[in-house]
Amino acid sequence: MRAELELAVRYYETDQMGIVHHSNYIRYFECGRSDMMAKYGLPIERIEAEGVMLPVVAVECRYRKSAVMGDTVRIVSRIDKVPLAKLVVRNEVYNQRGELLADGSVTLGFIDAETRHPVRCPEKLAAVIRASMETDGKDTDSTVGKNI
Amino acid sequence: MRAELELAVRYYETDQMGIVHHSNYIRYFECGRSDMMAKYGLPIERIEAEGVMLPVVAVECRYRKSAVMGDTVRIVSRIDKVPLAKLVVRNEVYNQRGELLADGSVTLGFIDAETRHPVRCPEKLAAVIRASMETDGKDTDSTVGKNI
Amino acid sequence: MRAELELAVRYYETDQMGIVHHSNYIRYFECGRSDMMAKYGLPIERIEAEGVMLPVVAVECRYRKSAVMGDTVRIVSRIDKVPLAKLVVRNEVYNQRGELLADGSVTLGFIDAETRHPVRCPEKLAAVIRASMETDGKDTDSTVGKNI
Amino acid sequence: MRAELELAVRYYETDQMGIVHHSNYIRYFECGRSDMMAKYGLPIERIEAEGVMLPVVAVECRYRKSAVMGDTVRIVSRIDKVPLAKLVVRNEVYNQRGELLADGSVTLGFIDAETRHPVRCPEKLAAVIRASMETDGKDTDSTVGKNI
Repeated sequence: MRAELELAVRYYETDQMGIVHHSNYIRYFECGRSDMMAKYGLPIERIEAEGVMLPVVAVECRYRKSAVMGDTVRIVSRIDKVPLAKLVVRNEVYNQRGELLADGSVTLGFIDAETRHPVRCPEKLAAVIRASMETDGKDTDSTVGKNI
Repeated sequence: MRAELELAVRYYETDQMGIVHHSNYIRYFECGRSDMMAKYGLPIERIEAEGVMLPVVAVECRYRKSAVMGDTVRIVSRIDKVPLAKLVVRNEVYNQRGELLADGSVTLGFIDAETRHPVRCPEKLAAVIRASMETDGKDTDSTVGKNI
Repeated sequence: MRAELELAVRYYETDQMGIVHHSNYIRYFECGRSDMMAKYGLPIERIEAEGVMLPVVAVECRYRKSAVMGDTVRIVSRIDKVPLAKLVVRNEVYNQRGELLADGSVTLGFIDAETRHPVRCPEKLAAVIRASMETDGKDTDSTVGKNI
Repeated sequence: MRAELELAVRYYETDQMGIVHHSNYIRYFECGRSDMMAKYGLPIERIEAEGVMLPVVAVECRYRKSAVMGDTVRIVSRIDKVPLAKLVVRNEVYNQRGELLADGSVTLGFIDAETRHPVRCPEKLAAVIRASMETDGKDTDSTVGKNI
């Protein structure tokens, strides 16, 4: 499963160093994975509506270059493994010149929205990821969609 | 009803002009009113837990001077009228030298958390505001509380 | 001068009421006007690079309906008057069903980036706004551009 | 070098899961280290004013439990090594019941504010860290300061 999302840097994302504040890359990662899930037909808010929430259990990010106002970042998101108890999403963020700005990963858990106890990955989500892996192997062009 | 809250400016709140981004004052207003409600014994999250949410229906803010990193802002919040369908909170934000940075007001509605339909101000909240007005008339020192 | 920008709601923009936090509309307004200036060939960061900053001096916003995760908001921005000392931008935010979510205005000042003293609107910006008004009168279709 | 900072959870920091959004812990880490530097007499904005900026080059964070509205988080920040080219700050975030919510680390680089090229850790900062290590060894009570 893989998707790309382009986002214009927002003024409020900059800090007094004149660059995008580092915390916003963690948010870019989130934008990327929300968009990826929506493109594969299973938006995160639908999984939530069906009673499972996906809290983040770990993040890591390495910062290579800075984004500045006027830049458009391209966020690549990727899931390489069908999850059991944890879902790992890998992300890279590039600028409009193709330079790598940051990369990292986010690990999500699954909890029951009512009891807040850990649960297994919903079968619907596992199925979508499994299916995407078969498709991705055959048709890598399928991964670039319409972004807003 | 009146309260004061002091907050240190946070680095991520600054923007590339080197000042606190204007949107954060709307957030300071919210910090001020959350803190005020908690000091008067009725935190907003308790009102929510009892089934009434307070969405913002209008904000206005005038910016006088900028806050910068290293500043501590003092947020004054005030409710002057027992609400019926709408609650108006007035705010001023000062820096550590007592200079007025921004002032404005926030109007909140009341909605039922389940139906999302408008409701009247919960009697518990109206009572706390009414009581505070009687107290405030007699003892203006009661308004400055412990802040974090 | 008028422009439209579409943005997908981001998960981190939601709050525990399950709706986009009200402060984010002030940020949407900013995204809208940054995008408008860029579309008219004069990005705000270029004005800044030439020595003039545009701090916000007032905002007002009325909230009509909530945006939720999964929504795409359409931000309309409009400048109706060539500015002298202040620039007023009017904004409306709609959802994907064309429902008005919020509307308001933002007033910006002009200050010298070095001295931080108020200055007049840079002639380059006044010229772009003046030109857009003549064009807008004749060709209203020119206002919808490419968005990301 | 070690410091603690207590912060009340802010409503806008919550998300539609009803918990503090994970990106805010990265911001809590920043609040903690800004506060620590200020308590040790060398605020980050002073280092910047003297021509050296400290961009973040890596973050990692593990999330253990959620913070919710009404909670007060306690952020522990620690520097264990005098930096050469990189500064590593370790952080833990606890709630008011002493439960560990999150822990992680942030690595910062040093760049010249003008040229944006990497530089060594400013001697003034190295000296403060070195001195703190000697003091910390003798007097562990010195680490808890006044917080806002």
